[in-house]
Amino acid sequence: MAKVLLGKPASNGIAIAKAYRLIEPDLTVKKTSIEKVEEEVSRFRSAVEQAKEELEAIRDHAKEHLGEDKAEIFEAHILVLSDPELLTAIEDKISSESVNAEFALKEVSDMFVTMFEQMDNAYMKERAADIRDVTKRVLSHLLGVQLPNPSLISEEVIIIAEDLAPSDTAQLNKTYVKAFTTDIGGKTSHTAIMARSMEIPAVVGTKTATKEIEHGDLVIVDGIKGEVHVNPTPEVVEKYKKEQAAYEEQKKEWAKLLHEKSISADGHQVELAANIGTPDDLEGVINNGAEGIGLFRTEFLYMGRTELPSEEEQFEAYKTVLEKMEGKPVVVRTIDIGGDKELPYLNLPKEMNPFLGFRAIRLCLEEQEMFRTQLRALLRASVYGNLKIMFPMIATLDELRQAKAILSEEKEKLVSEGVQVAEQIEVGMMVEIPSTAVIADQFAKEVDFFSIGTNDLIQYTFAADRMNERISYLYQPYHPAILRLVKMVIDAAHKEGKWVGMCGEMAGDETAIPILLGLGLDEFSMSATSVLKARSQIRQLNKAEMEQLANNVLQLATTDEVIQAVQKAIHKK
Amino acid sequence: MAKVLLGKPASNGIAIAKAYRLIEPDLTVKKTSIEKVEEEVSRFRSAVEQAKEELEAIRDHAKEHLGEDKAEIFEAHILVLSDPELLTAIEDKISSESVNAEFALKEVSDMFVTMFEQMDNAYMKERAADIRDVTKRVLSHLLGVQLPNPSLISEEVIIIAEDLAPSDTAQLNKTYVKAFTTDIGGKTSHTAIMARSMEIPAVVGTKTATKEIEHGDLVIVDGIKGEVHVNPTPEVVEKYKKEQAAYEEQKKEWAKLLHEKSISADGHQVELAANIGTPDDLEGVINNGAEGIGLFRTEFLYMGRTELPSEEEQFEAYKTVLEKMEGKPVVVRTIDIGGDKELPYLNLPKEMNPFLGFRAIRLCLEEQEMFRTQLRALLRASVYGNLKIMFPMIATLDELRQAKAILSEEKEKLVSEGVQVAEQIEVGMMVEIPSTAVIADQFAKEVDFFSIGTNDLIQYTFAADRMNERISYLYQPYHPAILRLVKMVIDAAHKEGKWVGMCGEMAGDETAIPILLGLGLDEFSMSATSVLKARSQIRQLNKAEMEQLANNVLQLATTDEVIQAVQKAIHKK
Repeated sequence: MAKVLLGKPASNGIAIAKAYRLIEPDLTVKKTSIEKVEEEVSRFRSAVEQAKEELEAIRDHAKEHLGEDKAEIFEAHILVLSDPELLTAIEDKISSESVNAEFALKEVSDMFVTMFEQMDNAYMKERAADIRDVTKRVLSHLLGVQLPNPSLISEEVIIIAEDLAPSDTAQLNKTYVKAFTTDIGGKTSHTAIMARSMEIPAVVGTKTATKEIEHGDLVIVDGIKGEVHVNPTPEVVEKYKKEQAAYEEQKKEWAKLLHEKSISADGHQVELAANIGTPDDLEGVINNGAEGIGLFRTEFLYMGRTELPSEEEQFEAYKTVLEKMEGKPVVVRTIDIGGDKELPYLNLPKEMNPFLGFRAIRLCLEEQEMFRTQLRALLRASVYGNLKIMFPMIATLDELRQAKAILSEEKEKLVSEGVQVAEQIEVGMMVEIPSTAVIADQFAKEVDFFSIGTNDLIQYTFAADRMNERISYLYQPYHPAILRLVKMVIDAAHKEGKWVGMCGEMAGDETAIPILLGLGLDEFSMSATSVLKARSQIRQLNKAEMEQLANNVLQLATTDEVIQAVQKAIHKK
Repeated sequence: MAKVLLGKPASNGIAIAKAYRLIEPDLTVKKTSIEKVEEEVSRFRSAVEQAKEELEAIRDHAKEHLGEDKAEIFEAHILVLSDPELLTAIEDKISSESVNAEFALKEVSDMFVTMFEQMDNAYMKERAADIRDVTKRVLSHLLGVQLPNPSLISEEVIIIAEDLAPSDTAQLNKTYVKAFTTDIGGKTSHTAIMARSMEIPAVVGTKTATKEIEHGDLVIVDGIKGEVHVNPTPEVVEKYKKEQAAYEEQKKEWAKLLHEKSISADGHQVELAANIGTPDDLEGVINNGAEGIGLFRTEFLYMGRTELPSEEEQFEAYKTVLEKMEGKPVVVRTIDIGGDKELPYLNLPKEMNPFLGFRAIRLCLEEQEMFRTQLRALLRASVYGNLKIMFPMIATLDELRQAKAILSEEKEKLVSEGVQVAEQIEVGMMVEIPSTAVIADQFAKEVDFFSIGTNDLIQYTFAADRMNERISYLYQPYHPAILRLVKMVIDAAHKEGKWVGMCGEMAGDETAIPILLGLGLDEFSMSATSVLKARSQIRQLNKAEMEQLANNVLQLATTDEVIQAVQKAIHKK
């Protein structure tokens, strides 16, 4: 039966394909007594063999379609399944205690996992994760259920999941994935960001997608309106095929603006830049006509590994990006980890409120070696392009001054060693903590630029975790309180002759853009895939009119009033 | 050897007494094989008997000195130790598996705890906690270590602890506790708040107190300077006895201001009110000359129990406070739970960032029955005094409007039922979320008053968990960003003819008071024990001069600069 689910539109576009449920099956284990222990042992061995064959197939497929590094993960899993110590322990347990294979496997592997996790050694901690993954796979064969194998996908699909974790998306064969639909998540969730970077539509926060959609159902994901159609009628499919074609047509129209300026109807020029996570994202940046990188997140260099990246490794990554951008501005944000973004090898303590915790610049000012290594790599790379360095999570001037002093020290050291460093490197900071917006006039005297990080600024300003579904109503980018803080920052910077960018999701949002243009924002940094659409919008707006709109909405009291005012101002045209 | 530890002064005064270490001993259990199982069973039985005798002594002592309700906790523990099901299971395990009593006890009780905790029943969850406590006690006898029994304290002591939890302080015999010293915690920690409410000195955040201080050491706690002297020389003791006397003398001076007005040297009058947690705190309020209650936290009604308090029970509590305050203003904050303040019977999900979570008004607008019950109790009590109702954690006008609408509905219902309700009840809100300070002008039109909750406002404005030791440097009450937000709130309220209070720790702080007076704060609500000192300070300050000071510090860039400016302004006198 045809059904329509409503969710949040998280990435533009329309997709029509079969559903692929990326959901872990129930792997709960019960303890039972076994009489024929030898039969149980051989049942276990055959499950291990099946798991191994499956892993070999996945490895080969990954090597071909996803690259060597992805394939290595599965190679490690195969090795675990050849470890006699682990296998013998499980078989012994089955025999000596006359228990079922599932239970023996779970108990023994839990023991190994606990043991490895307690070791003060990142390599061993990774092994714990491998054992956990492999146990699931063998269990699935013992229990006769199917684990999803996203890397084996070989036809066009729409991924249905509760929420996608970075580990899920890393294994996706992106050629065949046409859209995402999830139960939870918002516009700033990993799923949403991933979809935009892959340029595929996504509808998140449907609440019930995993309950309502079966494997193989025909699904339409409308990432513009936020609708998911399950087993639609032929008429609906027809209608959406037309909309899809129209959307492709519109994209072609936007593509004509690839080399045009981002300039308002009355001649005010701004910069439209892109946010990137890794050098791999550069292709999208260039294909979408971004005029620079407004936010280069450097966390990718630190994640999914067992030790800190070397200065050389970082230097190469920064150099690549700077060179490929051919002199266009590249704002690199220094490392923003800690809190929820954990790095096992740093051994940071668990925190009660990671979003209000010891992270980013707070961590860097204490773990200075890590910070200095990154700064040296950046300074050395600076001669290959137009580098700007940006510090995250600055809350006080003392922190900014300390970070700047460390940067100067490293620069002087390099210069005295005869290493070439660019003469002018702009140094700026994220404005994502309310305190910095409130005294932006003081900060403006000591930075070259600001970049407003709205995702965090919004969650702190409303004291509402943006990942917490129960209070998602408090994620209000258009709220007058946010707009007033943005105005404070822009006015303070301009008074000192400095420029202001924005690198949160808000910068690419079509309701926010008219207000931000009116407030005088200089640089809008967004998902690369939003750049052309934003350029098209800005070229139709009149800056002087948007200034009036901005002044007007700053005096309103609620988000709804702001949205209405913007719609009225735009539709008047 | 004499040692001096430095910490944060968290409650004023000087105490000299013996150390009492309120620290749980190591109760780690190892599994060993036992040959003589009968001897092991009887060793277990005798530990149970010893634990029972100890609990009976504690129960009798608690009944006499702490009251029936505290004694009941221990009665429940004695019952657990008489439960044949539990005891037999442990003895069986010792016999059948030939294991040591400690291991058998731990395994069996862990199993019962897990079982009870998984039940969807608050009573059973409480039983799980009882079993856990009793297990510790029996273990301590088996292992031959001593559990601290704070309820048995019968001589003057200074409590040494890592940090004090509400459950620790609930069992303290307050007659004999002269001071607190802890390793961790800040000015807004439970230990600090408890010390101020008990009117005893406290030094928190010493980092090493539990390592450096032995049970029975002579300790001096200087809650004014934040120093802890361990085994001081007779000269130091003599000096501190003099300081103690001088402090008592000063308190007598302050006491002369008991019935005086809180009025500046140039004739500007403000209100000095007190924060309370339970009706028991009223004695301190009256003895310290507070002119009202600026914050009545109502959480005590909901905590340490198995179900929501009835309307009648709440009505009695509110009525008591209103009557005892004899017409002086009483600001009651509606329930501020959820997040870190958990109530097992509400079955709220665990959150990743409880301080940014589903709590206070956010919870009340969903769990409306709980909220409406409280509002009805408050409305019915309103005729017994000068009640003002205040909503916590308001972030948007929509939330405020919803809360006010619910209050109006309940008021109309009561009136239509013929129940008497006061005609004028002021309705206000906490300003503790940055968004509300930034658009205070909009809120000021729809409330009768604001109360600035600085503890939370500071942590959200700097995006720094105030309980997180690693970033405690970011708890900066005097920071210009905070002062500017406070000014926005006061100016906005005054423009609409509304009054502004402050109920965070900052309101009673001698460095903050001159600035707050200058900014025009109308009501200062603090620990009752700070009221007379604050009154003395305000009577010596000149409002006009403080206005200049306030204008001056608003233009500064850092906390240090503000502190220097205040000290210069005050010492000039």
